Amino acid sequence: MKPDRRDFLRTAASALGASPWLVRGQELGAANPVPGQDMSNLPANWTGHEQIGMLLYPGMTALDFVGPQHMFASLMGATVHHVAKTLDPVVCESNLTIVPTTTLADCPRELDILFVPGGGEGTLEAMQDRQILDFLSDRGSRAKLVTSVCVGSLLLGAAGLLRGYKATSHWATLSVLPLAGAHPVEARVVHDRNRITGAGVSAGLDLGLSVLALLRDQNYAETTQLLAEYSPEPPFQAGSPRTASPAVTALVDSMFVTYRKRARSAMPALPKRKSAA
Amino acid sequence: MKPDRRDFLRTAASALGASPWLVRGQELGAANPVPGQDMSNLPANWTGHEQIGMLLYPGMTALDFVGPQHMFASLMGATVHHVAKTLDPVVCESNLTIVPTTTLADCPRELDILFVPGGGEGTLEAMQDRQILDFLSDRGSRAKLVTSVCVGSLLLGAAGLLRGYKATSHWATLSVLPLAGAHPVEARVVHDRNRITGAGVSAGLDLGLSVLALLRDQNYAETTQLLAEYSPEPPFQAGSPRTASPAVTALVDSMFVTYRKRARSAMPALPKRKSAA
Repeated sequence: MKPDRRDFLRTAASALGASPWLVRGQELGAANPVPGQDMSNLPANWTGHEQIGMLLYPGMTALDFVGPQHMFASLMGATVHHVAKTLDPVVCESNLTIVPTTTLADCPRELDILFVPGGGEGTLEAMQDRQILDFLSDRGSRAKLVTSVCVGSLLLGAAGLLRGYKATSHWATLSVLPLAGAHPVEARVVHDRNRITGAGVSAGLDLGLSVLALLRDQNYAETTQLLAEYSPEPPFQAGSPRTASPAVTALVDSMFVTYRKRARSAMPALPKRKSAA
Repeated sequence: MKPDRRDFLRTAASALGASPWLVRGQELGAANPVPGQDMSNLPANWTGHEQIGMLLYPGMTALDFVGPQHMFASLMGATVHHVAKTLDPVVCESNLTIVPTTTLADCPRELDILFVPGGGEGTLEAMQDRQILDFLSDRGSRAKLVTSVCVGSLLLGAAGLLRGYKATSHWATLSVLPLAGAHPVEARVVHDRNRITGAGVSAGLDLGLSVLALLRDQNYAETTQLLAEYSPEPPFQAGSPRTASPAVTALVDSMFVTYRKRARSAMPALPKRKSAA
């Protein structure tokens, strides 16, 4: 399938250049060559070779995944892998069913971005899945950026990747992060060294754009934002405990009492630090 | 897969009620019974039997679809169908691959909501696909709500469903709507009688919440919004031509010159109105 937005961005790049252009297919990565187009007039940093690994698991929240995926898929030259335990379709908590592009075993070993979505029950199960934790711990140890949305940070934490890092999560689960050795921060997107974590579900759009600006530049991120017409106008002001009515906040918080307890149980004990560390 | 958020909402409903509750499985629709739970304490309008048909087609934009799908999937008792020409996985323009739950032929004939996402090249192809247009025209003629995001409105227009209606679309394609007999409105979500159209891509989240409030009530929509932590903080102010820099706007607009031309060509001629109309 043709990645239309990348074609759009190529057009944009062309508009910035002086003359017709040909893609250097090799440099754009085998997955996304556009034969017959010269991209030599691109701004030097507008194309890359990133390998991006985005984890899929049963019961994850589709929107946690698709917000950042929309943004990452705009990156000219990058290859975005949708990675699951097997190639079987993954059923999300909303019943959206996504087909992986590769498996944990076949995912490239060196990733520029590792991304983990949150979910409901499925995240608690993933936090106790040795195969998933080993994958995250391995790829995360070398990835240039380790990222998550919502309670995906609890899963990163379970894999030992947030110890000593500032991080965020869904607002109602921030109190679980210290069990992973993380320092919870109530913010939309938290960036500490190479860890970038987003708040609940919809924060993935904000996180995705922030990552584009890091990998390319602000102009690239803004172009993608305008293409996605990301100028949100929520019809109500209930998206945060700071703005929602006390009744709605209390209601939603009450829904998380059991979830938080179970997330605490699911979080593996922190291994003792090596004495040399 | 268990729809966790609906469980959350059931908990919320329970919290509003006085005592333990049992789902009346039949009333919740065969797809989502929760055996052993009594929902008799729910607010009368917090559960429904909606049949929701969301169109999938190759080259559509995944985020156009998943924003509203996240919200619609929160509706207790509703059944959300992901409808495509066949049951084969549908490859979106970002390469996200979604498995349909039903086909155009098997989709319930009476829908409470018909939803159409936008896309790139794929939308232009769908606008010329008789099978898709016939499906939309048929289901849309009886659906309680006819909805779209981004250039999904051009597809609704091609199916003859926007004639005489105010509607919106991706900002760069508003000028195409009059060819479908629609009156373009530059707004995030446009509601004219039973047509609800959203602006580009990310507007689906705003549209989805608006629809929840219509089908249930504001409290229900706000609860869903807080669960999704939909309190957006875009890192840049480039999501609309009103806020983006003139250079970025000109760039993105230039990318749409060809698309607009092709969308005009793809739009079927308006049939003459019947003399009785």
